[in-house]
Amino acid sequence: MADPTEDELREDAGDGYELDERLVPQVRLAVATENRARLDELLEPLHAADIADLLEQIDSGPRRALLAMASDIVDGEVLSELSDSPREEIIEFLPDSVVNEAVRDLDSDDVVDILEDLTEPQQEAILDALDDADRAAVEQSLAYPEESAGRLMQREVVAGPEHWTVGEAIDYLRGTEGLPEHFYHMILVDPRMRPIGYVTLGRILGARREVLLRDITEDTFRTIPADQDEGEVAYAFNQYHLISAPVIDETERLVGVITIDDAMIVLDEEHEEDILRLAGVPEGSLTDRVLATTKRRFPWLAVNLLTAILASLVIAQFEDAIATIVALAVLMPIVASMGGNAGTQSLTVAVRSIATKDLTGSNVWRVIRRECLVGLLNGVIFAVVMALVGVIWFGSPALGGVIAVAMVVNMVVAGLAGTMIPVLLDRLGVDPALASGAFVTTVTDIVGFFAFLGLAAAVLL
Amino acid sequence: MADPTEDELREDAGDGYELDERLVPQVRLAVATENRARLDELLEPLHAADIADLLEQIDSGPRRALLAMASDIVDGEVLSELSDSPREEIIEFLPDSVVNEAVRDLDSDDVVDILEDLTEPQQEAILDALDDADRAAVEQSLAYPEESAGRLMQREVVAGPEHWTVGEAIDYLRGTEGLPEHFYHMILVDPRMRPIGYVTLGRILGARREVLLRDITEDTFRTIPADQDEGEVAYAFNQYHLISAPVIDETERLVGVITIDDAMIVLDEEHEEDILRLAGVPEGSLTDRVLATTKRRFPWLAVNLLTAILASLVIAQFEDAIATIVALAVLMPIVASMGGNAGTQSLTVAVRSIATKDLTGSNVWRVIRRECLVGLLNGVIFAVVMALVGVIWFGSPALGGVIAVAMVVNMVVAGLAGTMIPVLLDRLGVDPALASGAFVTTVTDIVGFFAFLGLAAAVLL
Repeated sequence: MADPTEDELREDAGDGYELDERLVPQVRLAVATENRARLDELLEPLHAADIADLLEQIDSGPRRALLAMASDIVDGEVLSELSDSPREEIIEFLPDSVVNEAVRDLDSDDVVDILEDLTEPQQEAILDALDDADRAAVEQSLAYPEESAGRLMQREVVAGPEHWTVGEAIDYLRGTEGLPEHFYHMILVDPRMRPIGYVTLGRILGARREVLLRDITEDTFRTIPADQDEGEVAYAFNQYHLISAPVIDETERLVGVITIDDAMIVLDEEHEEDILRLAGVPEGSLTDRVLATTKRRFPWLAVNLLTAILASLVIAQFEDAIATIVALAVLMPIVASMGGNAGTQSLTVAVRSIATKDLTGSNVWRVIRRECLVGLLNGVIFAVVMALVGVIWFGSPALGGVIAVAMVVNMVVAGLAGTMIPVLLDRLGVDPALASGAFVTTVTDIVGFFAFLGLAAAVLL
Repeated sequence: MADPTEDELREDAGDGYELDERLVPQVRLAVATENRARLDELLEPLHAADIADLLEQIDSGPRRALLAMASDIVDGEVLSELSDSPREEIIEFLPDSVVNEAVRDLDSDDVVDILEDLTEPQQEAILDALDDADRAAVEQSLAYPEESAGRLMQREVVAGPEHWTVGEAIDYLRGTEGLPEHFYHMILVDPRMRPIGYVTLGRILGARREVLLRDITEDTFRTIPADQDEGEVAYAFNQYHLISAPVIDETERLVGVITIDDAMIVLDEEHEEDILRLAGVPEGSLTDRVLATTKRRFPWLAVNLLTAILASLVIAQFEDAIATIVALAVLMPIVASMGGNAGTQSLTVAVRSIATKDLTGSNVWRVIRRECLVGLLNGVIFAVVMALVGVIWFGSPALGGVIAVAMVVNMVVAGLAGTMIPVLLDRLGVDPALASGAFVTTVTDIVGFFAFLGLAAAVLL
């Protein structure tokens, strides 16, 4: 097979942005044949984020071979883009000089992001490599709690006194070395460095030199306390369409700025956390190893085993009924399963609505009523279907009636539990995404088995 | 109870950004007493996004009363922020003049977003109210497919010829009326209006007037085809940390620009879709009515009923075994449930990794191997636990052995199916978030019941 050229690789990528799948074997081949020129040709067109993805997608062995051959492909940006687990391994493997060089290029927020997950000696080595000023900025950020605005912000800010004109701002910017890589506003501060408003760069560019900055500030202006949770920060950016926002300390002085691209990453991470937690996967990523993954998934499965045993205890109460009518054992999982699915639908909507702050004290009763009604309506439809199945399969209208009633009961309970449990957990300060699933399916299993078998024992025996 | 003052309302809101829950009853009271001054006092400090949330959280009746009393609280921004279903109702209710006035303020992308979900006559009425130029821009955007970059972009662009200097760019911006509300780059175009690079406003402001724009363009520059799916657009913004990106038509000419705040909204919506689809909730929001919600949730429950009946048919094959050893009926849901949960863990990780393009052809076998090993390890642990439960509860080591083996088998199958099914669905062009759950739990139910009951029938009878 002839090697595809760069253009072919690019062209075949089509509409999507993912890495071309053929790139990985090509890179492996270049590494195996120690063909540095070919490797550079393959990697040269890639964005740092794509190089990071590539490093994550190849196994540990070839990855080390690649890095041994071409450690210079890892610059600061690539390091920032890596997930925690491969990043730690790569930093461990690379010569200190390469890591230190890479980190020196980065804005303070990216250095903080890298340092957070490293071991103490690794942290020290990197901090030692920074300029004194950068080191102080990074250490100050690290002094804020994990997952706070203080960790997320960059210390490099573009600010000016409130009395400046557009002309003065432009002259200042032209005369300043080392402006941040990206900035979107000039923040106006009072003499005590407290932010009092901001002006978009577009407005500065569109105004005459003599215009006062304070006359062209944005209408909405929000500051973010440095100790605020990063999830709240991401919510504020999304809700109010912020592009950047000044971060203040407890004395209301400007200490940094958060930009929307960082907020977007947090939003993405919070979603990932929610999706995975709803499925009982507390954290971790595709690049984690078998043992770490097994340990992470174990607690949820253990909780589920307990709830499954609880449900079995309910079934055990009706052993006589089952021994007499084996059809009960055949049909009972259907009632539990339908309740579980309806409950999961309700709880997912509730968890998501709590996260977006759409489900509040003002409308919780309306939502609970709606979910129960939805459960009732769908329950009645499926009750009719199952009654027919009962009659056709087992020739027993009484059995059909029993399963129909149990189905309606369980699906209404599913709507009720699916909404109330996440709301209650949230009020108690427990993340509803993490714990709702186990509680809701326990309720629907127990109610499902109890309603069906109990009714059967009462009516059919 | 004395009315809380504005400051109290604000202060008590604490760290979060959600609406103060007490605001809703206060607003209702102001409406009921037709106290317009109080209403303005309550709403005045709110951002448009919060006013939209408020309108969504109150019931239809009070909402109409509020709008009848103060229709002017609904401006263009508030309309943009509303969800589809209340927006349609509010537009229907408000006088045309208010709606038209509101829409005239908006950038073209926001008008498109509002129009998309309206009925034909409502669309016509709003289009008629626009200037000819705005109307043409909006109609051109609407000509692109739904959920494409063309729908998402704003037509208002800031572009200049490639030979311009910083000074020429500043003079142009100062001399131009009606610059877009927000813009972050000046796009450089060739004489045929094809974008060839862009310069951040920060760089323009930091450079001397005689510097050529082409000498200070960004290193990475990406154009977005107008017919590209908006999900891919959001992915590109997140992956490459874009702030804005030019959109081109099929002749590669500049037709609009997408900014990161719109991409962030799409990312948020795509996540919402994934979370809900994984739980079998195809779309819709908290503000939908009972009937609409019931209809939406029905298909997934119907699919689940079919799979539950399939599982029951497996159980029915072993009626004799169950009639002889009723303990089988008591224990069988545990095996199925553990498999279902382990499978859901694997499939959620797989679905999420496919969405973030981390799971690809290069590492799919590695991931499958890992998931099966994780299933095996956790399976062995829970097998030991269940063997003990079997012995202690039912006094039968043979029954303990049977459930242990069935547990291991089902959890390995869960890891395998939980990864392979989403990957296969994705290759077939079916959204793995939507369909994986039903398939995976069908597999784990059937394998769980079959392994446990089949083995029991072979060993214990």
